[in-house]
Amino acid sequence: MNRILLESSEIRKGVATFGGARAVHVLEVLHGEIGQVLKTGEIDGRIGTGEIIGLSASDDDPWVRVRCEHAEESRRPWVDLILAPPRPRVMKRLLPQLAAIGVGRLVLVGAQKVEKDFWGATLLKEAIYRPLLIDGLMQAGTSILPTLETRRNFRRFLREELDDMFPGTLRLVAHPAATATYGDRRQSSAVDGCRRPLLAIGPEGGWTDDEVQLLESRGFTRHSLGPRILRTDTATVALLAQLMKEFDR
Amino acid sequence: MNRILLESSEIRKGVATFGGARAVHVLEVLHGEIGQVLKTGEIDGRIGTGEIIGLSASDDDPWVRVRCEHAEESRRPWVDLILAPPRPRVMKRLLPQLAAIGVGRLVLVGAQKVEKDFWGATLLKEAIYRPLLIDGLMQAGTSILPTLETRRNFRRFLREELDDMFPGTLRLVAHPAATATYGDRRQSSAVDGCRRPLLAIGPEGGWTDDEVQLLESRGFTRHSLGPRILRTDTATVALLAQLMKEFDR
Repeated sequence: MNRILLESSEIRKGVATFGGARAVHVLEVLHGEIGQVLKTGEIDGRIGTGEIIGLSASDDDPWVRVRCEHAEESRRPWVDLILAPPRPRVMKRLLPQLAAIGVGRLVLVGAQKVEKDFWGATLLKEAIYRPLLIDGLMQAGTSILPTLETRRNFRRFLREELDDMFPGTLRLVAHPAATATYGDRRQSSAVDGCRRPLLAIGPEGGWTDDEVQLLESRGFTRHSLGPRILRTDTATVALLAQLMKEFDR
Repeated sequence: MNRILLESSEIRKGVATFGGARAVHVLEVLHGEIGQVLKTGEIDGRIGTGEIIGLSASDDDPWVRVRCEHAEESRRPWVDLILAPPRPRVMKRLLPQLAAIGVGRLVLVGAQKVEKDFWGATLLKEAIYRPLLIDGLMQAGTSILPTLETRRNFRRFLREELDDMFPGTLRLVAHPAATATYGDRRQSSAVDGCRRPLLAIGPEGGWTDDEVQLLESRGFTRHSLGPRILRTDTATVALLAQLMKEFDR
């Protein structure tokens, strides 16, 4: 945790008391004591510092109380993701990483090779995925929570909702068979760098040819990671890292 | 698995029979049948194809027999890594990804913030880590196995072994506080692109200032991923992905 994030409901008159994993981290890793100043922030709000004004290191129920000064704007998300989800176990590991890297809006879509029982996963409950996203933000030191939406009907989503949800985006579809990488194209189009990237990443078995064609018909261009075929979660982080560098985010 | 890899000891007169996870994959995912041609390869050897000439789909002990034609050179590793290891659980997830991305030589070093009990982890036994590396190669479709070495005495390793083990490398140390990214520097030095990169990545708590200075004194320059602080395994994949793009590997 590189920043302790607080729910707005936890902060009253500039003071917040928290327990659980955050308190254990402050007490055991940061060796928190009265007067110590922590990096803190409000989820979906501003960031800044919190001075420790009270604490209890009891094993049963440790807690920390801070007085917050949150005056600074958090670094904002800079990329959106349309993801045909991998297995819940893989997805669970991926979510904090997506939040940390700066994904703003995450839409999980029902591509053909997505396992049908994914859509019943408990991971899709906000009570489960929200803390995972917050973990990622606390790691990265930012505070703006990504949104997560599901669209099982991939075709209808592309046809009816895509343009309204993601206007003016630079649309890229991850595809091993692409010959041009994003960097090649960027050299031929100086305006690209001003548009927010929207990345479509296929399921563990890949997009079908139909799905790639459909994405292309909606303005997505193919983007390759190179000749090695990476696992979907590795590929997702790798592509986002490459874009992060291209876009200097 | 995008390529089935075989131990050289498994191949006799161009024919190999294998069971276990590889056989299950061929039979259940690839719907293998007699005459079908698979992508295969020999670990640390050449790659090519294997025609299925026998199989048993028995639940207890499935096996597949292939006649191999391995005439093609595998894509070779292109980067080396000095890694202060994260917890074994994280390391275990990272190993296949490192092999898939193309790491050639991996040296695990004892930086100050590496947990002492890491060095007793069963993961360090070749019988445990080797299959994980092979999984990564089978994902990526390559066949050259990374080597894994351990050097608990980080200072002695840098002083006495580094130059002999990694001559002429472009040395980069991952450090959040770096101001220049690799790309910035590359523009000022056209020869960099010809040197094999050697990346030093710190432990979960980061390198100490002393350690960074020591690396700098050995020719490592600081390399930043950007303003977000990523978890060590995410950062490792992200940095390698960015270098992969820079070096066009």
